[in-house]
Amino acid sequence: MSIKVIAFDADDTLWHNESFFQEAENRFKDLLEDYLPQHTVSRELLKTEIENLPWYGYGIKAFMLSMIETAIGITDGQLKSSDIVKIIGFGKELLAKPVVMLEGVEEVLSTLESKYRLVLATKGDLLDQERKLNKSLLAKYFHHIEIMSEKKEADFSKLIRHLDVPPENFAMIGNSLRSDVMPVLSLGGHAFHIPYHVTWDLEKVDHKIDHVNFRQLEKITDLLQHL
Amino acid sequence: MSIKVIAFDADDTLWHNESFFQEAENRFKDLLEDYLPQHTVSRELLKTEIENLPWYGYGIKAFMLSMIETAIGITDGQLKSSDIVKIIGFGKELLAKPVVMLEGVEEVLSTLESKYRLVLATKGDLLDQERKLNKSLLAKYFHHIEIMSEKKEADFSKLIRHLDVPPENFAMIGNSLRSDVMPVLSLGGHAFHIPYHVTWDLEKVDHKIDHVNFRQLEKITDLLQHL
Repeated sequence: MSIKVIAFDADDTLWHNESFFQEAENRFKDLLEDYLPQHTVSRELLKTEIENLPWYGYGIKAFMLSMIETAIGITDGQLKSSDIVKIIGFGKELLAKPVVMLEGVEEVLSTLESKYRLVLATKGDLLDQERKLNKSLLAKYFHHIEIMSEKKEADFSKLIRHLDVPPENFAMIGNSLRSDVMPVLSLGGHAFHIPYHVTWDLEKVDHKIDHVNFRQLEKITDLLQHL
Repeated sequence: MSIKVIAFDADDTLWHNESFFQEAENRFKDLLEDYLPQHTVSRELLKTEIENLPWYGYGIKAFMLSMIETAIGITDGQLKSSDIVKIIGFGKELLAKPVVMLEGVEEVLSTLESKYRLVLATKGDLLDQERKLNKSLLAKYFHHIEIMSEKKEADFSKLIRHLDVPPENFAMIGNSLRSDVMPVLSLGGHAFHIPYHVTWDLEKVDHKIDHVNFRQLEKITDLLQHL
């Protein structure tokens, strides 16, 4: 392998994230259980999120707006203002969450930084991602930080061009097959998949990936056996 | 003047923006006029926006969430769900607005691009700013595009370092004294202020600026007399 630049996803790769979102979603479902069974609430929320994605993009504010819209739709106008205040509260609590690093992250970054150019490539709210990066104290390991509105093939293509490296020298590490692995493999780059214990429905992919530039790992420290 | 890099603000400098926000805010005030006089609604909304700014940052989603929170606060729990649906609608309409360029913008950019390195430096929602830039077809004029979560001195300092230019070779063009002019002058750069016909209360500054590196202009084409 001729990897020179390694890009890390952030949420659920370097620090916990989806578990906090699911915690908030559980409270949202509890709030609405007088109206609808919990799994129906989940399904309706996901439907709203998908519809809003082209307009809102990713991140907590988008999640808050989609929760509010879903709650109003589900309750057929019966929702109390105080419930919306609660939903806004779920979102604000998410924004205030501490950054909880995944095990072994700092060891991996500090080992790899002398041998490779390290990059952070994350999608979501600009301000929220910056805040988490600052709280994490990990910024010092990264040569470049890219906060992206999407992680599709065209977005990675732009990033790789900007980093001035051919795709075959570029590797992406992340927990999402859809957002971190598949677009990078398509471009001729390398990808390491490290699943997080929970996955947002929108990031789920149901087929197996079999590619010469692809490695499936269990935890981030496994990287050190390959790089 | 030894200007080599020129950074342009986007909203209300290259294209109309605040006028659309004020249109949405007027509809918001109309919606709530049974509860409170319009100027009180404006004041309450601004208060909520300021409180939420450190959490939400700038942009339409933040504006939507602050409108919802303000409306619930003002109406003391009497707000109907259908009114919140309307507020979400105001925001979605804002997101779908066409990009309407200010007069002379393309002439100025196409004249300056051969003599200077042009940069776009804008704050707001990542996805929304990208969408507007794409719609505008202006991206081709810019050597670098920076979407910032804030435009304070530290943010400009980072940008100027990244552009690898000393501050005395850097000029910022924008409609906000607070966000485009003052931080750049503090750093030793140049600034040109071109007011937009309306200004968001949060961007208002009530003192005069008198600085050797500062120019007050009336319209963007006036730049061509100075650069």
